[in-house]
Formats: sequence, C-alpha cells, structure tokens
Amino acid sequence: MYEVIVLKEGYTKPVQKGHFKAGGSVTLLKGPQNIVVDTGSPWDRELLLNALLGQGVEAKDVNFSVCTSGGADKVGNLNLFPEATHIVASGVCRQGSYFQHGFQEGIPYEIDENVEIWPTPGHTGADVSVIVRGTKHGTVAVAGDLFECFEDLEEPELWQNSSEQPEQQQQSRFDVLRVADAIVPGHGAMFQVPAEYRKQMRMVMMQEERYMEECGEGASVHASFRSECVIVETD
Amino acid sequence: MYEVIVLKEGYTKPVQKGHFKAGGSVTLLKGPQNIVVDTGSPWDRELLLNALLGQGVEAKDVNFSVCTSGGADKVGNLNLFPEATHIVASGVCRQGSYFQHGFQEGIPYEIDENVEIWPTPGHTGADVSVIVRGTKHGTVAVAGDLFECFEDLEEPELWQNSSEQPEQQQQSRFDVLRVADAIVPGHGAMFQVPAEYRKQMRMVMMQEERYMEECGEGASVHASFRSECVIVETD
Repeated sequence: MYEVIVLKEGYTKPVQKGHFKAGGSVTLLKGPQNIVVDTGSPWDRELLLNALLGQGVEAKDVNFSVCTSGGADKVGNLNLFPEATHIVASGVCRQGSYFQHGFQEGIPYEIDENVEIWPTPGHTGADVSVIVRGTKHGTVAVAGDLFECFEDLEEPELWQNSSEQPEQQQQSRFDVLRVADAIVPGHGAMFQVPAEYRKQMRMVMMQEERYMEECGEGASVHASFRSECVIVETD
Repeated sequence: MYEVIVLKEGYTKPVQKGHFKAGGSVTLLKGPQNIVVDTGSPWDRELLLNALLGQGVEAKDVNFSVCTSGGADKVGNLNLFPEATHIVASGVCRQGSYFQHGFQEGIPYEIDENVEIWPTPGHTGADVSVIVRGTKHGTVAVAGDLFECFEDLEEPELWQNSSEQPEQQQQSRFDVLRVADAIVPGHGAMFQVPAEYRKQMRMVMMQEERYMEECGEGASVHASFRSECVIVETD
C-alpha cells in the first residue's frame, strides 16, 4: 500500500506577458519503494531535503526518481539521489548505466504491482505519468504537466498553450482519466476527478465505440473529435 | 573572448542490447560570463564541482546553466547553481521566475555578442545548441546530442537511432555545420569540422540553391534529399 504525499504543491502565477512565477509539484510515493516524482526547481534543494525528512525519509532511502517532463521545475535536484534509479526523458538510468525502455512504443515501466510509469506524450514527446493503485484515494495519477491544474478540465487553453502536440496530449489525458480517481497535476493541488466529469468521460467513450462500430474496428477517433465532445458537454 | 573548456568528456559504451554505459559532455564557457553547458549525470556532483574549481570557478560564480537536451546525463546537477539563469527544455528561468522565449519559433537567445543559444530540434523537440564565436578554435558549437560524436558525420545511424525527428535533426545539423569550425558533441571528444566535410557541405548547399532556382524561391529542400547527398558524397 502506497501513501501519496505531495511534498511541494505546484503553482503558476502570471506576472506579465511571457513572465510567470511557477513551481512544479513534487510528490513522494511512500511504500515498498520510496519514489520521488519530479524533483522541483534548481533552488529547491533544502526545501526538498527538509520535506523528505518530515516524512521520515532520507535522500539515500529514495529508490526511484521519476521526472514526468524535462522542465527546470521538474529536474532541478536529481543529484540528491545518486544511488536511485532515475527515469528521465523516457530513459532509465542508474549509476552510469543507461537502459532503453520502450516508452516511445507505448510500453509502461512497472516498478511493482501497484506502481506503473506510463508514457503520456503530448506536452513533450517524452512525458510520462506515474499510476499508483490501491491508495486511500483509489488510483492516483501523478501526471506532471499532462494536467496543469484542476481548472484545466474545463479550460483547455490552460494546458494547450504549453503543449508541443495538443492532439496527442488530449489522447494521453483520456488514457489517464480512464483509470484515475485522483490526479496530482503539474501546477496545482491534487484533486479528485469529479464524478460528473467521469460520467462525461463514459459518454465520450460510448461515442467512440459507436464511431468504431460505424467506421470499422481499426478506425481511430481523431483527437479533436474527442476534444470537441468533452468541451461541449462540460459547458 | 571565451575559452571553451570540456570539464567532462562525454562517451557511450554498449554493454549489451538495450544497456550501455554513458555520460554526457559537460562544458564550461569561461569569459565575460561563466556558462556551464550541460551539467552531467545525477552522480557527477563532486566531479563537476572539482572540475570547476580546477578552472578557478566556484559554483556560485556560474551565471548561466544551459541544458542542450533533457536526458539525465545533461540535467543531473542544476541545483549546484541556484542563483544562475537556467535554460532547460526551451525555457528560461531564474530563482522562481520563468520567462517564455521563442525557441519553438526558431528565435535564438543571445547571452552576449559572442554567445548565442540556438534552437536545434530533432533529437527532441526542445534541443538547443550553444554557438560561441571568436574562440581560439574559431566558432564552436556546444551541441549536445545534435551530434553524438565525430564518427556520426559518416555513420548517421549513430545519431539517428536516438532521434525523435531525424529529418528535423538533419536540418538542425546542417544549420550548425554552416557556422561551426569545431563541435563539442554529446558523447565524444570535441572535434574540428573536417575541411573535406566543409567542402561537401558547400556542395550540398549549392545543390540546395540549384533546387531553389528550379523549384522557386519558396521551395524547401526535403531533409532526406540533403541527407542522401551527404551520405553519398562522404562515402
């Protein structure tokens, strides 16, 4: 059983056009393995060490460090965990050894029976999300910038403005929403996926199924079609 | 006048299929600003601090930290420079403030009259290279994984195998080869661009010009055409 502990809550505050104050969420998954998901900004070293100690975890006890994306607010403190396995930019490495993993081919990386790292591209081509099952919140997705914050469920421009591939990101968001009871987003508080939203998700999926029936088994639903469904129905 | 000092020479050594030992190049540009290009792996903290001290530079004296790409071998030690300006994943940040810069629109970031950071996408969508003019080596490109090593000039699979967008990367390589006298690659020793190769580059560019003349001003040369030219002519 894993605890999901947000060590630092991400945020974004616009200052003026093109300039904003921001910090990325940093999350500890405490259980059979100690897993840090995103490591904060380059100036967060002491904050992060103290937050870990507050949970009774020393840096040397961290087994995995996972970066959901490559921004400075995510990768700022990898060197706190020199003995951990690092999963960064779709690569897996440990103490000088690098291992190819098929994230680009859509293959998840399984840490144990309750924790999987999923490729969730879109924001960048190498983004991942960590899926944790059986927590007190149900299934939690620590999703980085796949979700900017709770509000982006209804305000797509909040995530689309910083997306390399919005259509691919929309698909990845759907994949995560299919399984997640709660989400830790990149720049906002952890939130429960609203029941109402989950119903709409099911509706979109039924529409997809109808589309598949109409267009044949191999047909794929264009992301903008899905997006349109969701935006219309959540208004 | 900048000195280009390779603090750690990058390398890649295959161990077995899907597993390799590797480290990324770490470069100090020492001049009016102290600029660290790529920060090594999460276990390189002491190596990097000692290498800087060997050049008479303390971590607090580093003004800019630039990551050419998002791999763990590049972003491992950002927190050594909490007061620097960081350029990571096409973003610019400093002590809690993030600034949008138009790397995605192809706009370079100028540190001073001799140092520019160019967007050079392909390996990933957010890769950059640092172009330093007026060094004792001429114009140097600290290029990260845009160039794997000297040998990849003649063996394209060395860089293409880890490229998200090989055609885009080919274009970025051409852009850099047009100006660089020497290159610090991501996983090999710094090298002079061979005179013979530069001649071939000119030949490819002349072919491009002919193509433009034939196909009209607005025509763009397909990357595979350029690639083919180079491969054929370097054999």
